[in-house]
Amino acid sequence: MNAPLPLPIVEPLDRTLRDALTRMIDAKTKPPGSLGMLETVARQMGMIQQSTRPTIARPAMIVFAADHGIVREGVSPYPQAVTAQMVANFLAGGAAINAISRVSELTLEVVNAGVATPLSPLPGLVDIPIGPGTRNFAHGPAMTREEALAAMQAGAARVRHHAALGTNVIGFGEMGIGNTSSAACLMSRMCGVPIDECVGRGTGLDNAGLARKRNVLASALAANQDATEPIDVLAAFGGFEIAMIAGAYLAAAEAKMTILVDGFIATSALVVADAIAPALRDYCVFAHLSNEAGHRRMLDYFGAKPLLALDMRLGEGTGAALALPVLRAAVAILNDMASFESAGVAGREAR
Amino acid sequence: MNAPLPLPIVEPLDRTLRDALTRMIDAKTKPPGSLGMLETVARQMGMIQQSTRPTIARPAMIVFAADHGIVREGVSPYPQAVTAQMVANFLAGGAAINAISRVSELTLEVVNAGVATPLSPLPGLVDIPIGPGTRNFAHGPAMTREEALAAMQAGAARVRHHAALGTNVIGFGEMGIGNTSSAACLMSRMCGVPIDECVGRGTGLDNAGLARKRNVLASALAANQDATEPIDVLAAFGGFEIAMIAGAYLAAAEAKMTILVDGFIATSALVVADAIAPALRDYCVFAHLSNEAGHRRMLDYFGAKPLLALDMRLGEGTGAALALPVLRAAVAILNDMASFESAGVAGREAR
Repeated sequence: MNAPLPLPIVEPLDRTLRDALTRMIDAKTKPPGSLGMLETVARQMGMIQQSTRPTIARPAMIVFAADHGIVREGVSPYPQAVTAQMVANFLAGGAAINAISRVSELTLEVVNAGVATPLSPLPGLVDIPIGPGTRNFAHGPAMTREEALAAMQAGAARVRHHAALGTNVIGFGEMGIGNTSSAACLMSRMCGVPIDECVGRGTGLDNAGLARKRNVLASALAANQDATEPIDVLAAFGGFEIAMIAGAYLAAAEAKMTILVDGFIATSALVVADAIAPALRDYCVFAHLSNEAGHRRMLDYFGAKPLLALDMRLGEGTGAALALPVLRAAVAILNDMASFESAGVAGREAR
Repeated sequence: MNAPLPLPIVEPLDRTLRDALTRMIDAKTKPPGSLGMLETVARQMGMIQQSTRPTIARPAMIVFAADHGIVREGVSPYPQAVTAQMVANFLAGGAAINAISRVSELTLEVVNAGVATPLSPLPGLVDIPIGPGTRNFAHGPAMTREEALAAMQAGAARVRHHAALGTNVIGFGEMGIGNTSSAACLMSRMCGVPIDECVGRGTGLDNAGLARKRNVLASALAANQDATEPIDVLAAFGGFEIAMIAGAYLAAAEAKMTILVDGFIATSALVVADAIAPALRDYCVFAHLSNEAGHRRMLDYFGAKPLLALDMRLGEGTGAALALPVLRAAVAILNDMASFESAGVAGREAR
């Protein structure tokens, strides 16, 4: 095997324009601060793009799909075949992420990161699996360190493809029956949170199923107790789709994109990528708060306040895609609003 | 004076399709309930439109502007002239509501409901003032009951104009220096909440200004203590823009439109209209939670959970306009997603 490629390099966010952006936003015809998070996002995008006139160019959503050996432990109420069936649904345009991407005018790409069920030929699919699903991490690592690095490089390569086409805003979604189990273990190990506080109902476990999932994952953490370094943790618990997303985040920040962070699974990939390159988080907009238990705590880990909280818990990138119009509004505030001076509007009265 | 026209009649929401809509939403390729508030909004819009394929047709935003005699008591840090200046800014396309309406693809209309400063001729302005601002309600009613009713009819007429052009989703915004004072008094009297809990900083009062505003409004409530019936309360404290919005809500529900409710001022108009026609609230989608103190409590009065909470406190309809993409996504879920059956996706496994 060749020596592994280096991972993308994330430069610290250049804050040079911060004060200029703040002055511009405060000069707009509105009371200072009255546009709340729109102002914060506009300033962040200006710094990321190093421009006082940030744009949204060819926004893209990449959905990575893969299967998980841990499903053999009974951690999901849905059969594993659903992962492949949903990939076909994505490519036929019938899933929630398709509907929302159309509304938000996002370019949507679907990647087979490692689905277990053989996929019939599907036009449009980016078919770059690392393997036919991960191994069952109940008793040892889900993948090798080499597989984890290969998946990260593959995710990074997809982002570079979109960067070359002009994309400057990107989000990542996922599909993989069983992947809330991966995300919960990644969160527990990387953030130091007891597993019971990381585990939720996923696609809809009942109480007995939830109790079983907690027991399975507590054992799995013990069985992989040596994994503490980020890439080893990713290899121990991660799905191939999660590893590809982790690499994609790094490449997106390297390319100075604004990153829309989706829900529980997508954020678990960020926890890993952030441990590798802590500068990454400054390129991230946390798009929504998932109803999956544990996501709030993960957002707290980043000190993040999400843009949306719509009681969703689907994944696929749906929360990220829904937040794109908020970014469009943020950019429009900065680019299109008049200033008090240009509009001839009086400011606050001196006291 | 002629006898007043009757106010629009709001029919109770027809819930006939509720179960059919729920079954359709649950059959979509996603775990039941996993799209959260998108599902709720899709079902509500289906019931409002009496269709299992609801649409968003020619969405519109009407911004009503007017002045308030109460500003003579020093309740705002901005001069009254700003109301007229902002009307000019709206018509020139430079305000926040212009930028956000463009992003959300909303038709924007600006109405002079009663601005005090003479307006130079402004192409596009709907110029139907009830008077040159209201009287100072510190010592007696802001307007007569006849003026309140005339304003409500004028607001209703604007909605009927848009209904005739095909609009089926509408929001209402406002501009009026001093109008958080009106809204706070309307809220206090109609919802039975102590005035101190209704008063906020508006466009940005300091602590001394806030204390002064509380004292002024406590006195004003006492000076208008006889006003208890909704239209009398509206006449006592309301601005002409608030009264027009109250009438506009009634006409929008009469026309079976989905109504996007904006922030503190717009919700205060809803409190009045809802007291006249309680069926109204079932046509409303509460678009956002304002940072203006008191709005949370007003939403609680309606048992409402807002779609967005972006720390905004600007008014103009900006929160309502930002929420339109969420409605587009809700409708798309219902109309465009495949079902488990149509997509060949397996459901939950029997246990």
